[in-house]
Amino acid sequence: MKNYIVHNEWCIIEDGFHPEYNEITESLMSLGNGRMGGRGNFEEKYSGKTLQGSYVAGVWFPDKTRVGWWKNGYPNYFAKVLNACNWIGIDLEIEGELLDLSKCDVYDFRRVLNMFEGTLERSFVATLPSGKSIKINTLRFCSLKDDESGAIRFSITPLNFSSYAKLTVSLDGDVSNKDSNHGEKFWNEINKETGYSECYLTLETKKSIWESVPTFQVCTGMKFECYQHNELLSCQTFPIKKDKYVANEVKTLLKQNEETIIYKYAVNLSSENYSNENLLPEAKKYLDRIVAKGFNQMLEEQKQAWKTKWEGNDIQIDGDIAAQQGIRFNIFHLQQTYTGQDARLNIGPKGFTGEKYGGSTYWDTEAYCLPFYLSTSEQKVARNLLVYRHNHLQRAIENAVKLGFSGGAALYPMVTMNGEECHNEWEITFEEIHRNGAIAYAIFDYIRYTGDENYLNEYGLEVLIGISRFWAQRINWSSAQQKYVMLGVTGPNEYENNVNNNWYTNYLAVWCLKYTLEAIEKVKKDNFRFEDIIRITNFDETAETSRWKNIIKNMYFPYDTQREVFLQQDGFLDKELLTVNDIAEHRPINQKWSWDRILRSCFIKQADVLQGMYFFEDDFSIEELRRNFNFYEPMTVHESSLSPCVHVIQAAKLGKKDKAYEMYVRTARLDLDDYNNDTEDGLHITSMAGTWMSVVKGFGGLRVKADMLSFSPFLPEQWQSFSFRVGFRNNALKVAIQREHIAIENLSDSPISVLVEGNKVSIRGLDTVNIPH
Amino acid sequence: MKNYIVHNEWCIIEDGFHPEYNEITESLMSLGNGRMGGRGNFEEKYSGKTLQGSYVAGVWFPDKTRVGWWKNGYPNYFAKVLNACNWIGIDLEIEGELLDLSKCDVYDFRRVLNMFEGTLERSFVATLPSGKSIKINTLRFCSLKDDESGAIRFSITPLNFSSYAKLTVSLDGDVSNKDSNHGEKFWNEINKETGYSECYLTLETKKSIWESVPTFQVCTGMKFECYQHNELLSCQTFPIKKDKYVANEVKTLLKQNEETIIYKYAVNLSSENYSNENLLPEAKKYLDRIVAKGFNQMLEEQKQAWKTKWEGNDIQIDGDIAAQQGIRFNIFHLQQTYTGQDARLNIGPKGFTGEKYGGSTYWDTEAYCLPFYLSTSEQKVARNLLVYRHNHLQRAIENAVKLGFSGGAALYPMVTMNGEECHNEWEITFEEIHRNGAIAYAIFDYIRYTGDENYLNEYGLEVLIGISRFWAQRINWSSAQQKYVMLGVTGPNEYENNVNNNWYTNYLAVWCLKYTLEAIEKVKKDNFRFEDIIRITNFDETAETSRWKNIIKNMYFPYDTQREVFLQQDGFLDKELLTVNDIAEHRPINQKWSWDRILRSCFIKQADVLQGMYFFEDDFSIEELRRNFNFYEPMTVHESSLSPCVHVIQAAKLGKKDKAYEMYVRTARLDLDDYNNDTEDGLHITSMAGTWMSVVKGFGGLRVKADMLSFSPFLPEQWQSFSFRVGFRNNALKVAIQREHIAIENLSDSPISVLVEGNKVSIRGLDTVNIPH
Repeated sequence: MKNYIVHNEWCIIEDGFHPEYNEITESLMSLGNGRMGGRGNFEEKYSGKTLQGSYVAGVWFPDKTRVGWWKNGYPNYFAKVLNACNWIGIDLEIEGELLDLSKCDVYDFRRVLNMFEGTLERSFVATLPSGKSIKINTLRFCSLKDDESGAIRFSITPLNFSSYAKLTVSLDGDVSNKDSNHGEKFWNEINKETGYSECYLTLETKKSIWESVPTFQVCTGMKFECYQHNELLSCQTFPIKKDKYVANEVKTLLKQNEETIIYKYAVNLSSENYSNENLLPEAKKYLDRIVAKGFNQMLEEQKQAWKTKWEGNDIQIDGDIAAQQGIRFNIFHLQQTYTGQDARLNIGPKGFTGEKYGGSTYWDTEAYCLPFYLSTSEQKVARNLLVYRHNHLQRAIENAVKLGFSGGAALYPMVTMNGEECHNEWEITFEEIHRNGAIAYAIFDYIRYTGDENYLNEYGLEVLIGISRFWAQRINWSSAQQKYVMLGVTGPNEYENNVNNNWYTNYLAVWCLKYTLEAIEKVKKDNFRFEDIIRITNFDETAETSRWKNIIKNMYFPYDTQREVFLQQDGFLDKELLTVNDIAEHRPINQKWSWDRILRSCFIKQADVLQGMYFFEDDFSIEELRRNFNFYEPMTVHESSLSPCVHVIQAAKLGKKDKAYEMYVRTARLDLDDYNNDTEDGLHITSMAGTWMSVVKGFGGLRVKADMLSFSPFLPEQWQSFSFRVGFRNNALKVAIQREHIAIENLSDSPISVLVEGNKVSIRGLDTVNIPH
Repeated sequence: MKNYIVHNEWCIIEDGFHPEYNEITESLMSLGNGRMGGRGNFEEKYSGKTLQGSYVAGVWFPDKTRVGWWKNGYPNYFAKVLNACNWIGIDLEIEGELLDLSKCDVYDFRRVLNMFEGTLERSFVATLPSGKSIKINTLRFCSLKDDESGAIRFSITPLNFSSYAKLTVSLDGDVSNKDSNHGEKFWNEINKETGYSECYLTLETKKSIWESVPTFQVCTGMKFECYQHNELLSCQTFPIKKDKYVANEVKTLLKQNEETIIYKYAVNLSSENYSNENLLPEAKKYLDRIVAKGFNQMLEEQKQAWKTKWEGNDIQIDGDIAAQQGIRFNIFHLQQTYTGQDARLNIGPKGFTGEKYGGSTYWDTEAYCLPFYLSTSEQKVARNLLVYRHNHLQRAIENAVKLGFSGGAALYPMVTMNGEECHNEWEITFEEIHRNGAIAYAIFDYIRYTGDENYLNEYGLEVLIGISRFWAQRINWSSAQQKYVMLGVTGPNEYENNVNNNWYTNYLAVWCLKYTLEAIEKVKKDNFRFEDIIRITNFDETAETSRWKNIIKNMYFPYDTQREVFLQQDGFLDKELLTVNDIAEHRPINQKWSWDRILRSCFIKQADVLQGMYFFEDDFSIEELRRNFNFYEPMTVHESSLSPCVHVIQAAKLGKKDKAYEMYVRTARLDLDDYNNDTEDGLHITSMAGTWMSVVKGFGGLRVKADMLSFSPFLPEQWQSFSFRVGFRNNALKVAIQREHIAIENLSDSPISVLVEGNKVSIRGLDTVNIPH
């Protein structure tokens, strides 16, 4: 755990340079706008510890897999988010000395991620080995408004000398992925050109042997301007071209105590959005447009765009500045990662902050991220997350065929870029199939929140039919038990592999079948696209639904009649039933125990039975929840960053305030304080949504009931008060939980009714209601 | 399946050149003598399909592992049998044309592995592109008598020309392993030198980062002589030195229709047997000695040595030449691979015939190979296989510690070279722990066969204690069942992973505990080394044995009370119970089904419950065996080459003659006919022992009962008769099974009693008894 980040309401602040933590700080201070982004790297050369990373959404490469022993059905490739052209480079050389913070004495260093405005600012004084001191101030952002562009203000002030300086303003595409499986580079150069203070570099991903994988082109362009005394300098620029690299060199006179400012504008256009032949001309147009707009105007727009976002999603915590900073940090990065403008994109586990884990889409999206976007963004954003999976339905069907299923059964991949599976551990890829259920659940969750029932007609039902067909084939009849069973699965608790009758997966599968049957009736009633869907899916309603009903009626669920708890899987009670208190010195077990010991232990990585009771809470009584929580939580080691949030929500519901807060603390500043010693690889983007859930669904008790928002809040003792903003259909609310009362402010014109502790409360437009508690 | 090998009693014959099958033929015609060996490659350059392979026993390299996702406890490296210096090279160039069969017209090609004599002969006429025709005849062997050497006779006769020719007689150490994980080469050159018609090349394996792994040096030396008209030529030789390569070039006049013969003698001395500084001088001495002896004398000794071997282990099958060839092929390769002279060596899955699978030692050694060597070789040979494991006991203890065990618990590795685990699939390495039991069983099996009870005192008990300690920790108490259980294992049927209570493993574990208790009593009674062993193992007899007894009394074994069969594992009956007839078009499932489908199916790769009933057959009634065989065999796909033999033995016992023969046929010519399309990678050496068992223990019904050999033979209808030779303690027997009677010949002086169909039969020295049946 690190503790060097200054606590502040709205900013992430590194005060004084911490070169030993630089890769961590780079992760924390990543910038993004949904389309492009990158780590908080320095503009100028830095020879110390750094992980240079710049990413363009939707652009990836099918890296060769690496396996110990090939298993039939393994995917062809492991998709990697691609480190792309580094567009921020501004090198400064003075009389043969290159500004490089690892070779200077550094004073007054301060790096600030301003989350309120969406900018990264850095200032310092560096003394070069020759004794020359320079003051540098940089400001950078990825524009939310013009989301294929970024801009930099780089200001230089010599403090104790005047001298000519050489500035090298570059685009560097000679980059590689740190996580490349076989040390390969993934880009080829297509074109580069440079003119007066502008450069363009077009790269293409290497041709893959897999037909299903396209090559991508990205054209990066940049222009820059130098100002002294608010006057644009007209300085000579020298072109520099190297392999996958293009730059302009500028010589200019820096005068003591006078500021020189470089404004650098950059665009990243990808072949996902432009034809290859248009990439370069469009990049030029785009650049001309933003340069004409100018840095200050772009900055104003950036501030305005973030202001609007915060109006819809801010959480305020009073009395705990660390918590305040933590939650805003999470909200900020979630909003940077996914803006919901493009249904082809999704939420990568590291967003634009690193490369680890490859792929872009896990079930994290449906199970953890969707609720955040439902409550904090316009409806389209969450809807696009669903449409993404609809667009991959055919690939999910092909994926199932590869594993021996047929008849339009769909198995969504565990990890994917384009709908194809790209993870290759058999126990995950082939067996962690509950992900399929989460995709169905997301449809339900979305409609419950938004009321957009038409989604079933337009997209949802086809996906549900494919998923239900998969379950119907994957489940088999056990003659011995005279019940339907599901063999050989891995549940959300990945500290078990290849188990029989994972309760969560069985429950989810049966729920999918039920929900699909309901959805069929609904779509039939709407009489809008039902015949089309029957035709497209080649659906044999009578035969298929009759099997589904049979399974629903006769499914087996492991249960302990003595303890009256659901059993995580068959045979769970044969384990030595310990609690985490019994193994204190062995934690984290994923570092201290061999894999087989973990597998045969009772210890649980993340909510499994409890994940099911969270999804389907209305199916269970509070006493059932209490029994299961009391049985499973003490065995849970929470070694997934996705684990604590579910437990916060359930502990809160059960009135276990201390437990709820304890769990919350584990996620709140996971990355900010580098709890797991891995922030340097990038941030845990999807688990940030879990932290948001902990506050809003856990402490706030937010649910949707009978088409209304419902709250059952409690205020952790450690806080004075907290408030959150959520949107719901056509309304926006600010819910403030004080010690004595709850204040709900209707931020919209139209009236709304909500439930507070089960009681209906009506609030007029722009009015606030206080409810004592 | 291929069918190009000529059927012959004693020889493996390729008649006419089959370049498309050359890699297969190279595997089939591999030569070895337990210390060194290599594939049936050509001496002269060949640019067609070939896998050049030369191997030195006990010399290996810890190649970097390759994994998809690292799991705690994985081994550090994957050990590779090393392709070593190619010592056979003799290149022939005539007027600028190199003899290369892929660029000549080839006539009268014949390649013959003479198994009776242990030689590889090749003859052909080649017409070079220029029209020159040459007749070549080569004879090569790896000497059994001088087992660090090999010799070649290479004869050249020009048929339609006379010309000067250039012969290049080489040692080529610039070789690499085909199965290198990261494309690296593993050898460094230490030294090379060359004198008049002799060369020496000393190579050393690259330094490994693992302290436990030594580097190996191998010095390869060669001398050669040219003869014309039986006269030694004194021809000028030119040295050629390249990186890791040294050769002599000789120019000599080849006269039309006159034979020139090159005798090439080579030695391979490794640092396993000589100090590094002595390698070269010893190689020179060794070479001098064999050259003085001369090719013909060496050849005579080779024939004699093989004659002696065959006298002890031949199997004759009358009326089925394909079967005759098949069984001798297996015996021949087993004897080439392991001679039992060195307890540091073991039986690699590919012997000296290829590289695949890495490592040298699997549980195949104990479960399949030991019985072969027990019956066909002097006692020391099998004993050395046991001592090998004793020597690795400390490593097995360290291996267990790595996985969280303590107190001297020993887990022998799944695959090893030096006692360290070097396989890294968690479901195998960590969970296929039944291998530990096979090592205990081998001690029992060895003592039962040889009567060498003193082995327990000298070596056996320490190993048994280590193994039993492992089981005692690995097994846990299930409160739910009030029984001891064993969770998370993989049985011999590797088409199941991570199952609970695999019946075979549970049974074997309990047997180990019982046998160790017996062994303790025995060693105590002998009062020879018991106190030493207690001290060395730090054995707390009371406490430890009391837990063992508890487990023995209260172990859980899955059982189906309805069918009255042992259950392969918990939950087996929840599967869809099909038979292989139901999935004819899906076979082999390991090629046609995805891994998860295989795992959740009922289909069995190789004997699992039945493996246990084979090991411990006296524990079960014939009716129990029948019920279990009838239940499991129909679900068995026999996709391991080790599967059919156990079923032959049991089918034979159950009087299922057709089934027994059907199973036998699946293994008999596995490599010879390239059933699995993988003979090109090398031969399935360990499964060859299974074929031997099929004939001797299956059709011959050989067992040891009450310190006597016991036979219950049956003659497959397809054969006229068959006989086999076995040794037993101080006797040697030839057992001939005719249609009407069994003839047992006592090949030794001293009398012996045997059981035939349960009846005691006494046979005087050198006498034969005929028993009607």
